[in-house]
Amino acid sequence: MLYVDTKMRVNGFPCKDPMAVNPEDFFNPAMLDQPRDTKNSKVGSNVTNINVINFPGLNTLGISLARIDYGPLGVNTPHIHPRATELLTVLEGTLYLGFVTSNPNRLFSRVVKKGDVFVFPKAMIHFQMNLAHDKPAAALSSLSSQNPGVISIANAVFGSNPPISDDVLATAFQVEKKLIDWLQSQFWENN
Amino acid sequence: MLYVDTKMRVNGFPCKDPMAVNPEDFFNPAMLDQPRDTKNSKVGSNVTNINVINFPGLNTLGISLARIDYGPLGVNTPHIHPRATELLTVLEGTLYLGFVTSNPNRLFSRVVKKGDVFVFPKAMIHFQMNLAHDKPAAALSSLSSQNPGVISIANAVFGSNPPISDDVLATAFQVEKKLIDWLQSQFWENN
Amino acid sequence: MLYVDTKMRVNGFPCKDPMAVNPEDFFNPAMLDQPRDTKNSKVGSNVTNINVINFPGLNTLGISLARIDYGPLGVNTPHIHPRATELLTVLEGTLYLGFVTSNPNRLFSRVVKKGDVFVFPKAMIHFQMNLAHDKPAAALSSLSSQNPGVISIANAVFGSNPPISDDVLATAFQVEKKLIDWLQSQFWENN
Amino acid sequence: MLYVDTKMRVNGFPCKDPMAVNPEDFFNPAMLDQPRDTKNSKVGSNVTNINVINFPGLNTLGISLARIDYGPLGVNTPHIHPRATELLTVLEGTLYLGFVTSNPNRLFSRVVKKGDVFVFPKAMIHFQMNLAHDKPAAALSSLSSQNPGVISIANAVFGSNPPISDDVLATAFQVEKKLIDWLQSQFWENN
Amino acid sequence: MLYVDTKMRVNGFPCKDPMAVNPEDFFNPAMLDQPRDTKNSKVGSNVTNINVINFPGLNTLGISLARIDYGPLGVNTPHIHPRATELLTVLEGTLYLGFVTSNPNRLFSRVVKKGDVFVFPKAMIHFQMNLAHDKPAAALSSLSSQNPGVISIANAVFGSNPPISDDVLATAFQVEKKLIDWLQSQFWENN
Amino acid sequence: MLYVDTKMRVNGFPCKDPMAVNPEDFFNPAMLDQPRDTKNSKVGSNVTNINVINFPGLNTLGISLARIDYGPLGVNTPHIHPRATELLTVLEGTLYLGFVTSNPNRLFSRVVKKGDVFVFPKAMIHFQMNLAHDKPAAALSSLSSQNPGVISIANAVFGSNPPISDDVLATAFQVEKKLIDWLQSQFWENN
Repeated sequence: MLYVDTKMRVNGFPCKDPMAVNPEDFFNPAMLDQPRDTKNSKVGSNVTNINVINFPGLNTLGISLARIDYGPLGVNTPHIHPRATELLTVLEGTLYLGFVTSNPNRLFSRVVKKGDVFVFPKAMIHFQMNLAHDKPAAALSSLSSQNPGVISIANAVFGSNPPISDDVLATAFQVEKKLIDWLQSQFWENN
Repeated sequence: MLYVDTKMRVNGFPCKDPMAVNPEDFFNPAMLDQPRDTKNSKVGSNVTNINVINFPGLNTLGISLARIDYGPLGVNTPHIHPRATELLTVLEGTLYLGFVTSNPNRLFSRVVKKGDVFVFPKAMIHFQMNLAHDKPAAALSSLSSQNPGVISIANAVFGSNPPISDDVLATAFQVEKKLIDWLQSQFWENN
Repeated sequence: MLYVDTKMRVNGFPCKDPMAVNPEDFFNPAMLDQPRDTKNSKVGSNVTNINVINFPGLNTLGISLARIDYGPLGVNTPHIHPRATELLTVLEGTLYLGFVTSNPNRLFSRVVKKGDVFVFPKAMIHFQMNLAHDKPAAALSSLSSQNPGVISIANAVFGSNPPISDDVLATAFQVEKKLIDWLQSQFWENN
Repeated sequence: MLYVDTKMRVNGFPCKDPMAVNPEDFFNPAMLDQPRDTKNSKVGSNVTNINVINFPGLNTLGISLARIDYGPLGVNTPHIHPRATELLTVLEGTLYLGFVTSNPNRLFSRVVKKGDVFVFPKAMIHFQMNLAHDKPAAALSSLSSQNPGVISIANAVFGSNPPISDDVLATAFQVEKKLIDWLQSQFWENN
Repeated sequence: MLYVDTKMRVNGFPCKDPMAVNPEDFFNPAMLDQPRDTKNSKVGSNVTNINVINFPGLNTLGISLARIDYGPLGVNTPHIHPRATELLTVLEGTLYLGFVTSNPNRLFSRVVKKGDVFVFPKAMIHFQMNLAHDKPAAALSSLSSQNPGVISIANAVFGSNPPISDDVLATAFQVEKKLIDWLQSQFWENN
Repeated sequence: MLYVDTKMRVNGFPCKDPMAVNPEDFFNPAMLDQPRDTKNSKVGSNVTNINVINFPGLNTLGISLARIDYGPLGVNTPHIHPRATELLTVLEGTLYLGFVTSNPNRLFSRVVKKGDVFVFPKAMIHFQMNLAHDKPAAALSSLSSQNPGVISIANAVFGSNPPISDDVLATAFQVEKKLIDWLQSQFWENN
């Protein structure tokens, strides 16, 4: 009996007909060599995720990928992967990147170039920015979970559905509620 | 030989003289029944942590506590515990509380009163606010790690040391750099 | 797609309609501020559990709670949580409490008062007793599992269904079978 | 560099000179084929443990062994392994054995003979007894931890050092303190 | 309600009627005291597995067993358990056994006799051979997983279905494709 | 105090002076964009590992990388990572790749091209081969452990130090000892 290694891992449960597993279950035509469009993004970046949601064969295997494309001065905005460390390799261009530790909040940032590797420890706030005014950049990230999740800080705080009370946010950010209300009205896209 | 249960758990390593362990190693005079001052807080709250940092006996045991005091309309601002789920019990007063899921960002919020319990799943952004204009509130939280960590979102984003480039933040929050610079100049406290 | 953070955690499996999750799934009106009756208990205590059995939202989250009420001189008898460390906070009164390590059997005990915290490491035999002759006591315990389990030593040994052979118990406790038989006839309550 | 597989596993830490590891580090001349004496035991049994305490090569490997010898009518008294499941194989003779679940306390017991296998789930109270009046029995147990620990219930409750207050035990076992005091005076051996 | 300890562990999921669990669920009449035939084996050995596949009660419990019988000069050929450490006890005879570490490939081997114990760390290539020309040998192995799996190296490399390209294997083993083709034609049994 | 997130993760232990951590601890100038020489390899491939051995900042973070270069018809020979799943992305060229499940030994193989992704589940035997006669290929692999380890099958079996007895290998591979001896004399390189 074929058990655990294959079909069981494909869907996370014992499988009725493991003989029905085939090589396609472990394959994804991800086209990770292809640049993605960054022009339709307000922040000038585009993340292509290859994880258990679109590649079920990764279930229980504890790993996934993301390709990140950056337009000129494009930003992959501050975010958290609640269930994964991220190991980023620069494919093209030059990036300013960093992460902030849990309290007290130290920033560890650096400029990195093609071929360099940088690691963002699990569940820390991190970001990247393409430093070039005139050309794109790209990175390939490995994540230590088949379902890493992502919390985009600005959207989660100001664009949740329904919104967080502006009393809470005005106090948290030490600004007037009017500014919070204005910020909350800005984030209307899906993320 | 006394092994693992006691001194080994106290410091996380095999111990040279386990016979030196005593009941005080498992005890903390935390005074969790005592309200804490919230007047010196800009946001009107005060968190008292009882975790492995001040109670070494918790090492390897996977649990810790926090008492949270809220002044009138006080807020425990949006934050994340990167390594723990939080199970909150209301000790006194009425709170508005909630958490935001990873993308897409749904808010799960509710008003809770004395004796109620609410759970914030691991590494999700969450907050609480005292709804009373005229009296304090308090909660006792259990956390599923001896070292849960805390990332206060506003401070981590706008008050890190050194600061995150305002180019990154202006793009992330879709506002002018002038506003980011002003926000960054606001967060000067230790957190 | 809303994945893992919410409904998946509610029932432990991917969910067909995650949009059906709501704040009530993360809430429990546990009334943990309310003293419970201890008069109907032979041992003078009453444990109120808030865990995955009555609060399904805790599933996979690794934490639960219990409120313990003690009548005058009431005892929470020696027991084990096979799957959890317990972190106890005294809400009211003065307790004598302790745990016994695995062999060799050292006792770590102490008197604790309102506001104090004491930790019972995972799967160790532990107990508490209200030292007051004339007033109740109460504690709130955090447990490092959503399903900690409890093995009440006296009941498990002398009151199991069906009973353990009195040959085994007479040898274990080094007493005559007549005494074992008498003890076995004493434990008839549900526990 | 030789890393993790060998010396690191031997002592749990990266090793300064991995080349100093040799086959003896993975070997134990345990003589598990040899019956042990059971005459000096009050309960007629003798447990030979092969775990990380006397076989350091098992460190981090998650498994250990015990040989159990039983004299005629000998008992391996009710006990708990706080960190391991036990899978018992009968080497010689016929045993009555069982375990009690966490509350409610159901007993799962059975008579087993040479060559049979029985499993005691992690941290449940369990026991074995040799049913023969006139010959020894023996078993070989596998345990799912390199350091399973053992809590002998009778000794831990009545023979701890220092003793548990007889007020607690009289209430727990629903007997007079005089009987508790007498029981506590019986357990003086090391266990 | 009877939860987790018993039926839930039997099949890995909450059970509809836990009261239907009985002692037989934790029992296996494995006849591990009985020698098995080794004459029908090309390599002179016979492995009897007692794991979750034929003993469902082991599910989630993290342990399993195997009895290994060796004919004269019989070999348990080089193999890997991808999910378990193996702790071997010699029941009868004298064995030459060993394992090879991950790169660089050091061999840790030894001759062991009746009653000896040897450990093969998780996922390392290991083997045993009966050194006697004229009598059988036997061992009992404990494995740190309820579903350890086994990869017989020779069969997996030269006898997979479908076969690995002989280009790959000729390069890997630095031999001519003709030899690979001949080897691939030799492995036709089920393993 | 800066705890766990940074220096503790750098070396796996609490750190004396966490303020001494800096961005370089999370950075590796890996030059993963640069092709490596494959001409000095007998099998026509060259693996560049970026793991905890040469990038200590990965410690405890559960992830690592490898760049694999293939000369024309070059092979990354059958091997196992005992502690990691591998998620391979093709950077350049066309590869024939696959893995063999644990017994029974099914082969899951496929031809993949630039941009494609394929996953090799943890501890399964796997391989890749450049199908082009006239140009190089390259891949970038993510591994779900900071210290995945590698067991090159041919070298581990025929080139260990000291060698495995040819009696064992002749039986395992069902060939004459003369052939084993000849194979063992072929593997003399370090791997």
